[in-house]
Amino acid sequence: MSDLTVTDVRLTPVLIADPPLLNVQGVHQPYTPRLVVEVVTADGVTGVGETYGDTKYLEPARAYAGLLPGHSVADLNGLAALAQRVAVGHARVEHAVDAAGLRGAQTADKVRLSVVSAFEVACLDALGKAYGQPVHALLGGKVRDHVEYSAYLFHRWEEHPDGAGERDDWGAALDPAGIVAQARRFVREYGFRSFKLKGGVFEPDREIAAVRALAEAFPGQPLRLDPNGAWTPETSLRVARELEGVLEYLEDPSPGAAAMAEVSAGTDVPLATNMCVTAVPEIREAFLTDAVQVVLSDHHYWGGLRATQELAAVCHAFGVGLSMHSNTHMGISLAAMTHVAATVPHLGHSCDSHYPWQTEDVITRRHTFTGGRLTVSDAPGLGVELDRDALGRLHARWLDESYAAMRERDDAAAMRRARGHETWTAPGLPRW
Amino acid sequence: MSDLTVTDVRLTPVLIADPPLLNVQGVHQPYTPRLVVEVVTADGVTGVGETYGDTKYLEPARAYAGLLPGHSVADLNGLAALAQRVAVGHARVEHAVDAAGLRGAQTADKVRLSVVSAFEVACLDALGKAYGQPVHALLGGKVRDHVEYSAYLFHRWEEHPDGAGERDDWGAALDPAGIVAQARRFVREYGFRSFKLKGGVFEPDREIAAVRALAEAFPGQPLRLDPNGAWTPETSLRVARELEGVLEYLEDPSPGAAAMAEVSAGTDVPLATNMCVTAVPEIREAFLTDAVQVVLSDHHYWGGLRATQELAAVCHAFGVGLSMHSNTHMGISLAAMTHVAATVPHLGHSCDSHYPWQTEDVITRRHTFTGGRLTVSDAPGLGVELDRDALGRLHARWLDESYAAMRERDDAAAMRRARGHETWTAPGLPRW
Ligand SMILES: [Mg+2]
Ligand SMILES: [Mg+2]
Repeated sequence: MSDLTVTDVRLTPVLIADPPLLNVQGVHQPYTPRLVVEVVTADGVTGVGETYGDTKYLEPARAYAGLLPGHSVADLNGLAALAQRVAVGHARVEHAVDAAGLRGAQTADKVRLSVVSAFEVACLDALGKAYGQPVHALLGGKVRDHVEYSAYLFHRWEEHPDGAGERDDWGAALDPAGIVAQARRFVREYGFRSFKLKGGVFEPDREIAAVRALAEAFPGQPLRLDPNGAWTPETSLRVARELEGVLEYLEDPSPGAAAMAEVSAGTDVPLATNMCVTAVPEIREAFLTDAVQVVLSDHHYWGGLRATQELAAVCHAFGVGLSMHSNTHMGISLAAMTHVAATVPHLGHSCDSHYPWQTEDVITRRHTFTGGRLTVSDAPGLGVELDRDALGRLHARWLDESYAAMRERDDAAAMRRARGHETWTAPGLPRW
Repeated sequence: MSDLTVTDVRLTPVLIADPPLLNVQGVHQPYTPRLVVEVVTADGVTGVGETYGDTKYLEPARAYAGLLPGHSVADLNGLAALAQRVAVGHARVEHAVDAAGLRGAQTADKVRLSVVSAFEVACLDALGKAYGQPVHALLGGKVRDHVEYSAYLFHRWEEHPDGAGERDDWGAALDPAGIVAQARRFVREYGFRSFKLKGGVFEPDREIAAVRALAEAFPGQPLRLDPNGAWTPETSLRVARELEGVLEYLEDPSPGAAAMAEVSAGTDVPLATNMCVTAVPEIREAFLTDAVQVVLSDHHYWGGLRATQELAAVCHAFGVGLSMHSNTHMGISLAAMTHVAATVPHLGHSCDSHYPWQTEDVITRRHTFTGGRLTVSDAPGLGVELDRDALGRLHARWLDESYAAMRERDDAAAMRRARGHETWTAPGLPRW
């Protein structure tokens, strides 16, 4: 039998291109930090994982990496427990809101879980290779051969201010017509059959109009709107009334479980969240108050693929639906998302993914959406291979001091730079 | 890599000796039916599991066994889903209460889950042997090296009526002094450090007296009392008042989630259950009404070891404690219980096990409690080996027509036979 002991851990922060996608916090930076984790076993098997790359995550990831050698990649529960020994800077979480994920109040445990998630995925990848099994089989086996994703539509600028970053040919999308055009291209190129619009960018009526335009262009296809808590409960209820029968679900219309419960009590439109239920301690209140009818899982939030399965079990027990959240990510995380999604019986909605917006990756073969779906890999491990040239190139960018400002993702700071003045701050939530 | 395809499945019903232990339903029969499941892979690896052996389980187990060949033992989610294709006789569940487990209303799904549990354990055993890993490592790895069990104390007769069945030298225990003597022997032989008394046998004051006698004999050690729903909420609250500060928890004092919630609202003594939360659809009401503060998991109830971990996750999310239930079982199930218990971080109580009462087994080396604990096996699979001679002997007893009445466990029928008349029925619940 193979020796599963961890002998080496490699951490490689990278900066990947990100288009000027708009949200309630500001705008995506030209480049966003991600961290690639490699775990190597005594037998020379390497597993890979991916998570956030900001300093807040990178520092504890480095400390955590130092604890792993000598442990077995099969000892996933033990590795999760080890994370409690990793300090998370108080200053990094106090009063902080995760700009990228809009994940509610930050805590040291949430940071630890996001770090652990990448290592868990890397261990599962290594374990799968050692056993000759795909990651889904280590999670009990796939219950579907394909995982459905939704088209993730964004209001966006044509390019970053001052021509910064990489260009793409998607053009601007700043009104309902622009959003519909973007959706049509998503359908043409990837075959998506459901749509999510990131809202919270313009006043609610303009976003209602965009959703109505989508409903007209794609009759009968599931539509979601996610303003990231931009609205008061009153506004949320007005939007829900206007879009009742049109929306599959309304995602985080108002900030916090109490406000969501208030909205939920006043509408039959299902409410979804990746903001007020993002860690185990937040489940109870939200479920007891019927604040949400759908939780968007995210293995980066919850501490890995097995924790995602546990969240799915909790949701199922309480009759709460399950969908999947995404942040800017590369193909390693998309592979992990697809494996775990394939194993969850009660996944009732197509998953979110930013992947079509990402032109840069560290794997040798990009994932391809066909009919809006990804085929679940049956190759050993995650079924992806690191492209070391690409990894080196994107790491060199991270090292390059002229990109230093990009090492922390801060959509509000990006918006400040775009507006050319330093006094702009992201609006408080709720905004409307 | 090894070929994990199931090529053969063997089902062997057995009858094992059981002492005359008393409960609210009646008395344990001289012999109780269990089913041994063997799953064989293309590479000749054999995995074993164990579950209930009554016809109600045996029939669907046979149908289910026929569906397995061609599937991979790694495809645990797929195998669980396959069970939906197995019919469960309506007559077997309609209005039926599980006499052995007192598991609330029977449903076809509960029967299926109890069947699946044995096959899941057998597949995990085979998979562990194929990978060279202990079962706990397939469940994410042990978080403790030893699992603590409690002494399971019973009111009992010295022997079965008319000298039926096998004899033992424990003697009768029909009053507080007898229970304390039994507990002392449990401590002497196995080192148990916590105690559970099966109640519901005598009027409540006599059982209160037994618990008080235990508290005096073993000061400061955790004590539990489980009358299996024998009491009205009023009686339960009176017992709780009298035993407040003495009990670790009070287990199923009243029958059903509504009655448990009524008791729970009136006492600070934690309430535990293996009767009103025994399957996923029963979780929500019990948790929303704070009916219980501890759930006793049982992999035979919930569909296996991974389902037990999911139950643990649900309990943790809601701040509900976790303990472990047992029914009459052999060493295969005890190994499975120990593996899963080793992986659950929030297991806050010692586990129940009838094992010390079982003198017959189908494994080559009996488990040994030391200091009330079992050491978690790191051998591949479950770490147990089938004793084919013993299996053959106990199966021959099952085949023997003179034991035919024992093929269904029915504690009330056993009590009828003991009382020598056919009109006695188990008292309705609540009794007092
Ligand atoms: Mg969202
Ligand atoms: Mg019980």
